[in-house]
Amino acid sequence: MSRTVYINGCYCASEDATVSIFDRGLLFADAIYEVAGVIDGKLLDFASHMQRLDRSMGEMEMVCPLNHDDILKMMRELVRLNAVDEGLVYMQVTRGSSGDRDFLPSEGLTPTVFAFAQSKSDAIRAEIRDGISMVTRPDIRWGRRDIKTVGLMGSVFAKMAVKRTGAGEALLHQDGYVTEGSATSFYIILNGTIVTRPLSNDILHGCTRKALLGLLVAGKIRLEERLFTVDEATNADEAFITGASTYVTPVVKINGIALSNGEPGPITRQMQDHYINFARQVAI
Amino acid sequence: MSRTVYINGCYCASEDATVSIFDRGLLFADAIYEVAGVIDGKLLDFASHMQRLDRSMGEMEMVCPLNHDDILKMMRELVRLNAVDEGLVYMQVTRGSSGDRDFLPSEGLTPTVFAFAQSKSDAIRAEIRDGISMVTRPDIRWGRRDIKTVGLMGSVFAKMAVKRTGAGEALLHQDGYVTEGSATSFYIILNGTIVTRPLSNDILHGCTRKALLGLLVAGKIRLEERLFTVDEATNADEAFITGASTYVTPVVKINGIALSNGEPGPITRQMQDHYINFARQVAI
Repeated sequence: MSRTVYINGCYCASEDATVSIFDRGLLFADAIYEVAGVIDGKLLDFASHMQRLDRSMGEMEMVCPLNHDDILKMMRELVRLNAVDEGLVYMQVTRGSSGDRDFLPSEGLTPTVFAFAQSKSDAIRAEIRDGISMVTRPDIRWGRRDIKTVGLMGSVFAKMAVKRTGAGEALLHQDGYVTEGSATSFYIILNGTIVTRPLSNDILHGCTRKALLGLLVAGKIRLEERLFTVDEATNADEAFITGASTYVTPVVKINGIALSNGEPGPITRQMQDHYINFARQVAI
Repeated sequence: MSRTVYINGCYCASEDATVSIFDRGLLFADAIYEVAGVIDGKLLDFASHMQRLDRSMGEMEMVCPLNHDDILKMMRELVRLNAVDEGLVYMQVTRGSSGDRDFLPSEGLTPTVFAFAQSKSDAIRAEIRDGISMVTRPDIRWGRRDIKTVGLMGSVFAKMAVKRTGAGEALLHQDGYVTEGSATSFYIILNGTIVTRPLSNDILHGCTRKALLGLLVAGKIRLEERLFTVDEATNADEAFITGASTYVTPVVKINGIALSNGEPGPITRQMQDHYINFARQVAI
């Protein structure tokens, strides 16, 4: 299955897109990434992803060789070349390659930039429609989850563990409180109020999360950003996750226990509609 | 600077050794590695590194496509081809590449294996001779430091931070207790007893650590494996770090405060001699 991808200024077949074995992305996970959703062949919430990219790069003390306009052009070209109607564009920036392996990066490395587009899978469409089950797992990721690095084995382990139970996503927790999903933001609904964990180094600063919380300000649904326990989650009226390509996806079961009647809840459905409308409006 | 490296069964120039941008090593840090020391052109403590490789692979639910004999042959060939007298061989095994990016690995992926040899730098020789300074940093790495994955940004950040202070290595701590160095095992000496943190998921199970502790059993120096605080470390009589290519390296200063007279201590020097003798005996 060949597709056209981008690497360091060039578009090429995916088979030809490679990086050096000395790339720090590969040796140290010394790289950051972004995933922008694609809807109706357009990029969703692009400015927000660029803002987070800049923040991640700053925290890593890296400078991206492409500016936002370059990235917009490149991402649009990938969407066009691969005829993606709904899906995502993934982009990674590594710190680059040096000669000898050394934890400490040399000065003046040239970052490696690559990107590819991917169409939405049927599995994700089904999850958005029908909802998913989650299973709790201890959050063993590192202490800077706010930086979108490629050091993702903590999340991969969580996904592998929940897969064995038949669930679709892990609900991570530490010190008795829910953090987030293994690759998604997480929300519960209690008595008509949406509750989600406040931003910190403990969770990714989700772009979809940011957009959704912005929409709530204008509406009538209350929001509480606070810590909450796994017990509160399993006893919630409704729950949902958000992500760049999963949008708002209902959660219908946690640790095998159905939330309410085990169907996507009414406020979740409302949030799905709000978000899709917003997404279509801001996509460029 | 070209050298001959190994990738997936072939020896080639380093410029030609690349991996796909879809490799899970690059997308998820879904890869493990080993670093074996080279002394007198021979591999140091090879069996111990293979034991740890197998353990890491098992925890990752991966199977290495090369057996220990294949790896020994390959590592020796890299040492020979690159005329390394003293240094290291680095080897990485990733879970392989799949088509679409998905946190959950597909079944039956073919692991990517690559390796390269590197000569000992003058900086490391000087550190082994004269000792290093350390500076304390919070340990923000993930919860499975016993698995030697390439998700190393926590260590890279620590190295970058201590570099700014002029120190050579970070002394990591969590919950008030020392864990280890950012890429080394750490030991203090109190009243003639060597003290180091016991093995758990919180530290790497160092091969040099294992060998050194084995040597202590036969000798007269006492050993205590227990938790200890940063205060105990800064007030220790001596301290040292160990690693595959740094062997036993004295620590002469922590957070700018000299340990004893600020020179490598006598027990540290003794351990250096013991270890080098052992290393020369077991190198193959």
